[in-house]
Amino acid sequence: MREVFQNELDGLADKLTAMAEKVVTAIDKASEALHENNLELAEEVIAADAAIDRLQLELDKSAAEILALQAPVAADLRVVISSLRMSASLERMGDLARHVAQQVRIRYPDSAVPAGFEPVFSRMTEAAGRIARAIHHLVSNPGLEAVPTIDDLDESLDTLHLRVFSQISDSDIKPAEVADVTLLSRYLERFGDHAVSVAQRIEYLLTGNWDSKLIPGTD
Amino acid sequence: MREVFQNELDGLADKLTAMAEKVVTAIDKASEALHENNLELAEEVIAADAAIDRLQLELDKSAAEILALQAPVAADLRVVISSLRMSASLERMGDLARHVAQQVRIRYPDSAVPAGFEPVFSRMTEAAGRIARAIHHLVSNPGLEAVPTIDDLDESLDTLHLRVFSQISDSDIKPAEVADVTLLSRYLERFGDHAVSVAQRIEYLLTGNWDSKLIPGTD
Repeated sequence: MREVFQNELDGLADKLTAMAEKVVTAIDKASEALHENNLELAEEVIAADAAIDRLQLELDKSAAEILALQAPVAADLRVVISSLRMSASLERMGDLARHVAQQVRIRYPDSAVPAGFEPVFSRMTEAAGRIARAIHHLVSNPGLEAVPTIDDLDESLDTLHLRVFSQISDSDIKPAEVADVTLLSRYLERFGDHAVSVAQRIEYLLTGNWDSKLIPGTD
Repeated sequence: MREVFQNELDGLADKLTAMAEKVVTAIDKASEALHENNLELAEEVIAADAAIDRLQLELDKSAAEILALQAPVAADLRVVISSLRMSASLERMGDLARHVAQQVRIRYPDSAVPAGFEPVFSRMTEAAGRIARAIHHLVSNPGLEAVPTIDDLDESLDTLHLRVFSQISDSDIKPAEVADVTLLSRYLERFGDHAVSVAQRIEYLLTGNWDSKLIPGTD
């Protein structure tokens, strides 16, 4: 019985890993689509998001079945509840990568990144790609070593988000371009927030400490 | 035993109702702060968000205890899992009301709403207030009659969000003002999305139908 149950918990971990893998692909392709103004790649990201959504539904269904049939307690229960939370964060990271791709599609054949904003967005998408990879590493191979990296990358994203605003204030780009840049920056900044949520869940599972960092709404 | 358990489920419903009530207050005050450029009111909203976060933590803790001690199945299990999801959505609605208030604080003594944008934002905050009230009604007194209203209000918010963008394109406001307006509009539009998530969860609990509308990421 116990062995069957362990297999089911492993199944949740496998689905989280599969979601994280797809999120890495999504943000990498969305970033390339953004910087190369590649519509085809943007369309790929938009179409691929449904697979992330499906994985979340599957994971949630498995988690509900485990709760109903195994009635887990203590550490096992924490794993199941945390999986539900992490799947929601990963699903949202997928959405945000899709939103970046949708900005590319909306502006095409113009570039969604106005002249002068390429450097700051290169840094943002690089940080977003690295944070997605760190999350993938963390869920496929839980351990605390990736957590500080994730916090640092999130901080970089927050700093770059503020830099976008000061650059906007000093620029003479068109109003519609300002709106694009504001949304793009917001999507990438939120991408980092959700990565931090996943990391905090893993930290909680590994240490059992539900500390003040886990107070929701730290964005 | 069954009676104790029912009390605990009622406890979850009470906490959701308390959260929804605080969300109504938050969005009402944030809207007034925005339109009256009232810094004091904005500070109240920002300070009050911690109470919504605390309620979410309490609700999540109660839900975990119910899962551990009562091992609910079938409809009861659905209630517990859905409560976890709804508390996350309500917490996020509180954050978004706080973000609106923070925009007021950032720009004060200037207005966060530039000249010419008052009408569209009056309509957006009115719709956001009404959707919050509909959610409060729905969680305190579950029934399907409020669901169509919530969908309609969310559609209004989406339409008004697009109107903000076309108004931005035609305006000659400063770049920093465009960024403010873009974020404000995005916060209110997302407020509606989270209300729809809560409504869909209630609909699912009442009908048992987990239909395609519940595919995540429909924003």
